[in-house]
Amino acid sequence: MMPAPVMSDRAKRIAPFRVMQILDRARQMEAQGREIIHMEIGEPDFPSPAAVVTAGEAALQAGHTHYTAANGLPELRKAISDIYLEEAEIDPARILVSPGASGALQLAMAVLLNPGDGIMMTDPGYPCNRHIASLFNAQVQSVPVDEQTDYQLTRELLEEHWQANTRAVLVASPSNPTGTLIEADELVAISEFIQERGARLIVDEIYHGLIYEGDATSVVGISDDIFVINSFSKYYGMTGWRIGWLVMPQEYIEPVNRLAQNMFLAAPTLSQYAALAALSKEVTPELKRRRDVFRERRDYLLPKLINAGFVVRTKPRGAFYIYADCSALRMDSETLCENLLEQAGVAVTPGTDFGHYNSDRYVRFSYANTLVNLEKGMQRIGEYLNKAT
Amino acid sequence: MMPAPVMSDRAKRIAPFRVMQILDRARQMEAQGREIIHMEIGEPDFPSPAAVVTAGEAALQAGHTHYTAANGLPELRKAISDIYLEEAEIDPARILVSPGASGALQLAMAVLLNPGDGIMMTDPGYPCNRHIASLFNAQVQSVPVDEQTDYQLTRELLEEHWQANTRAVLVASPSNPTGTLIEADELVAISEFIQERGARLIVDEIYHGLIYEGDATSVVGISDDIFVINSFSKYYGMTGWRIGWLVMPQEYIEPVNRLAQNMFLAAPTLSQYAALAALSKEVTPELKRRRDVFRERRDYLLPKLINAGFVVRTKPRGAFYIYADCSALRMDSETLCENLLEQAGVAVTPGTDFGHYNSDRYVRFSYANTLVNLEKGMQRIGEYLNKAT
Repeated sequence: MMPAPVMSDRAKRIAPFRVMQILDRARQMEAQGREIIHMEIGEPDFPSPAAVVTAGEAALQAGHTHYTAANGLPELRKAISDIYLEEAEIDPARILVSPGASGALQLAMAVLLNPGDGIMMTDPGYPCNRHIASLFNAQVQSVPVDEQTDYQLTRELLEEHWQANTRAVLVASPSNPTGTLIEADELVAISEFIQERGARLIVDEIYHGLIYEGDATSVVGISDDIFVINSFSKYYGMTGWRIGWLVMPQEYIEPVNRLAQNMFLAAPTLSQYAALAALSKEVTPELKRRRDVFRERRDYLLPKLINAGFVVRTKPRGAFYIYADCSALRMDSETLCENLLEQAGVAVTPGTDFGHYNSDRYVRFSYANTLVNLEKGMQRIGEYLNKAT
Repeated sequence: MMPAPVMSDRAKRIAPFRVMQILDRARQMEAQGREIIHMEIGEPDFPSPAAVVTAGEAALQAGHTHYTAANGLPELRKAISDIYLEEAEIDPARILVSPGASGALQLAMAVLLNPGDGIMMTDPGYPCNRHIASLFNAQVQSVPVDEQTDYQLTRELLEEHWQANTRAVLVASPSNPTGTLIEADELVAISEFIQERGARLIVDEIYHGLIYEGDATSVVGISDDIFVINSFSKYYGMTGWRIGWLVMPQEYIEPVNRLAQNMFLAAPTLSQYAALAALSKEVTPELKRRRDVFRERRDYLLPKLINAGFVVRTKPRGAFYIYADCSALRMDSETLCENLLEQAGVAVTPGTDFGHYNSDRYVRFSYANTLVNLEKGMQRIGEYLNKAT
């Protein structure tokens, strides 16, 4: 008799991303000659900035293909700490260069959470967050959020949902999928509340460079006791380089470095040299120009979606996503996404990828695509909805 | 009152690598003008092969800086499957390109182990293995091994140490720190035993290209039910690129891909293109030349160590390490390593990094250094021991 295969509960539990099935189907259709407009993708359409590519080539020429220290190149950690100079003076020892923001989030959760410990996060939220928590057998404490709090946690929500085993809270500002921010005064209130409870706050700032209006200061200025996660992927256009960072409280430096040694050895070396160039003054104007392009796309897309019958109750102020209520169109989000792909040739992500709370009523539009393509996409969506509703 | 800092038990438990302290101290001494001979390092002294660097540059020029699929470039997975053609025909879908062998090991353990499940491994062994198991709150079941089994597990040892909760067994061939292999017939016996028990075998083959005598066939030929971990770091000289792979049984493809999406998104893109070049026929002669250089160093170092009073009971046949008993020198290994560094300017790793079993009697010598440096190192060690013993 064959025994049942050995399989961990977490492996059974992690749901596949719907967006991956959509992407697969879209590629299949493209292979058959259909033109698909991609509004599902969470990756900037821009290439890495020229100076970043040049720095990568120079690092290759210089033979920088060996391991670095587990926490990254000292000059890169120094350059990252300089990003925060207006908000706070960060000891570069508090910074660890990680293989992507995923690596930074893994480290923060691994150092904080025992099995069964609670980590609070929003529903909807970035799905990897809850799955990484499940790696460490932590208990995800999802808090349903809606437009009343800009789809963000508040001190009040923390009080309401706090449990005896809550040890950490994760917020994202700007958020994926909603593009909303947490105001600085709310972050202060959240941070104080969490500290009173002896727990820890983790703030995901990976879309932090992509804020189009409102407060764009980092949470590092609020307290030294917060874990901050960031990445070179989105603002710096370096997704495939797999490089990000963690800012951690002083007392976690030593254990986090030990964990990183064991989990990753180090972030990719070439990517570290290239990231150093991404932080140079020379690249800043290009990054700001790209941010302006994203803003322009948002400003195009948002009214068009509303005209088409979607409801967007909180204006997204960052990232490159619009989280839109589709219930007025009388279709659940998965059906709508399937129809948009098959009948209109537009790929969009259903809300069900981001949680359970009202998720069948929402779809996420990404504007990481050119204005020309977004116009074409909205044209097709309009035509489809005229016929269908 | 300040609450105690939130800290997971695993973070408290993971011991720092002694080799890191040694490396730090060595660099401090070098900064003061001392010349240190490095025999502690687990990284080839060779740069990445020229064709690999060229492929990295070409990938940069071609703008390959976006994400790949979570399991890696299809052409790279196909090229990896071709490595095994003499042993077995591996469906490329069974291969996942990972961020280093560390990523592959994380995936294998994450998909297999629930909290409290047992994973058996050798003591001594590569320290990250037990620490990665602790990430997932698995129970490490260390089996003390010595020269009687070439410092490897055997079917007999499995029977003796098997526990009701043992769900996986990890072996490494060649092993770090001992450089020893498991014979093919023993691997067959181990694999059968594990399968009868409904558990899973994971084989670390990251030093597999660096075998100097004896059987160099991969375990993939023995059974489709084994997880195999490999890396471009050691044989292909690509440490800083952070790229490796996992070969998995068919029924794990889907859950492992889901885990990888959530844990890493994907391996670094440039590294994947460069790795493709590392597998090209053009590079093979250079890789074989390097392997011959490593063999020559081993053949130099082994008798020199024995002459100096170290005892090596099993001839190392692969990797670039010699695990030597220093008890005849009447010093515990940490004292010896400290003295060798401070008094002779030679950096070596104490056995205590690799486990508990007799580990204060062993030191690990790495020959990832030039013959000239190894000669200088042995000269200094000889002089030190003449004075000290």
